[in-house]
Amino acid sequence: MDFSVESATATVVESFRDTRDPRLRAVLESLTRYLHAFVREVRPSLAEWNQAIEFLTAVGQTCTDTRQEFILLSDVLGVSMLVETVNAQQTGTAGTVLGPFHMTESPPRALGDSIDLIGGARRCVVSGWVTGGAGEPVGGAQVDVWQCTEEGFYDVQQPDLQPPGNGRGLFTTDDDGRYWFRTVVPSHYPIPTDGPVGRLLEATERHPYRPAHIHFLVTAPGYEELTTHAFVAGSPYVDSDAVFAVKQSLVVDFTESHDESAAAAFGVATPFIHARFDIVLQERL
Amino acid sequence: MDFSVESATATVVESFRDTRDPRLRAVLESLTRYLHAFVREVRPSLAEWNQAIEFLTAVGQTCTDTRQEFILLSDVLGVSMLVETVNAQQTGTAGTVLGPFHMTESPPRALGDSIDLIGGARRCVVSGWVTGGAGEPVGGAQVDVWQCTEEGFYDVQQPDLQPPGNGRGLFTTDDDGRYWFRTVVPSHYPIPTDGPVGRLLEATERHPYRPAHIHFLVTAPGYEELTTHAFVAGSPYVDSDAVFAVKQSLVVDFTESHDESAAAAFGVATPFIHARFDIVLQERL
Repeated sequence: MDFSVESATATVVESFRDTRDPRLRAVLESLTRYLHAFVREVRPSLAEWNQAIEFLTAVGQTCTDTRQEFILLSDVLGVSMLVETVNAQQTGTAGTVLGPFHMTESPPRALGDSIDLIGGARRCVVSGWVTGGAGEPVGGAQVDVWQCTEEGFYDVQQPDLQPPGNGRGLFTTDDDGRYWFRTVVPSHYPIPTDGPVGRLLEATERHPYRPAHIHFLVTAPGYEELTTHAFVAGSPYVDSDAVFAVKQSLVVDFTESHDESAAAAFGVATPFIHARFDIVLQERL
Repeated sequence: MDFSVESATATVVESFRDTRDPRLRAVLESLTRYLHAFVREVRPSLAEWNQAIEFLTAVGQTCTDTRQEFILLSDVLGVSMLVETVNAQQTGTAGTVLGPFHMTESPPRALGDSIDLIGGARRCVVSGWVTGGAGEPVGGAQVDVWQCTEEGFYDVQQPDLQPPGNGRGLFTTDDDGRYWFRTVVPSHYPIPTDGPVGRLLEATERHPYRPAHIHFLVTAPGYEELTTHAFVAGSPYVDSDAVFAVKQSLVVDFTESHDESAAAAFGVATPFIHARFDIVLQERL
């Protein structure tokens, strides 16, 4: 039987019948159905289809060891956030996207160390407790953090200006489940706009900015892995994140503190900016 | 309002509200809806999403000046053929996919010239009439043809073994709408399997073969452009083309001829293989 608009999807779905991995088969069948339905709805001209091929090719070819343009595309289409959301833990701290900058390993650091290796101006302490759902402290949890500078750049974007590992640290909570580290207040920043995803945003009159945030990836034995951000309250674009990652429960006050005893405990001088971000993990079932 | 599985699609669709080009806006809205529906249905894990990102990145990075892996991916998912089909002319010769090998310009040649520059064994003449829907001859039509060798390779795949333009020719029909050229009978062949699309076919136990065919791209003023193939009747895989491009009306007999007067007219010796492939264009509305 000839390939037709009506028979196309069944024909292609049938071609996957011998796939060994049942999950792969189910994903490809679903992909075929939705992709074909999209084509039937928009009826792209051959010139438009060619533009799409060229766009996707350019996205792939923009990727390097330190840049992931396909994650960026997934981000601006809300797909990354949707995948995160369907996988999110049902209790505890809300999750959000991993983002494209978790591409190097964060250097292990001691509690209280600074992840600001270049001497930024707005010195800051971030601290919190990692607990389970019943409030039990989670000692020995790995708290991986990464953030941009006060100018809005990650280390991998400025290899000539920042040492590797600037803005990154892998901390381990103490027996009480506490973590704390020194840093600078990160800036809001544009996602990279000099590639095909930037051209897409420009053509759709969307701004490329993300509100200021610090990334967290928290793991502990017996608990679900948590990927999230602490967003800086009051940051520009906190209501219109280009990658849709803001959740209200993740917006954290970064406030100036004159508390001498807290400053002494954290090893900083007053005044300092303090952000408290507690993390609640969900037990693995 | 927080991004949620329920609100995600509306939020992302809304982000495209200021897009200047209404067609681009409509395509992106539709893409968002189908892509999100796919994600909601398959609920990919973060590891699976990451595999998809890596796969698409590899597809982009496999593309070169002479290889288009994203077209190949579109082909094996039946998307290329579906796009061709929704754009197909309603009357006249059936269309089929362009394929990934129309990447260099075919050299202009005189009627009767050979496109086989390397002296293949099964010498062949392809001839036909280009007409409009009412049977009127279309003189001056451009008939662009390209094909692989008897070993199943296009010139661009074997730059060290084939001169550029081998298997390719741009012919112009005479006043009676006739075209004819000399060639060899092409072979069935596998699409390139050493890249990510090849790995996809292997994982799904799909063979990579296309039945033997000659590509045609026919243009004439006042008529719709036609992209099609002449398939060699009896070729292996004519019932299971890896890219779904076969239509029964495009399957053509390549038969041995002992007709001395025909041989003289075509400038060949008997016996020769003869294929007749008439082409009916649709008037442009």
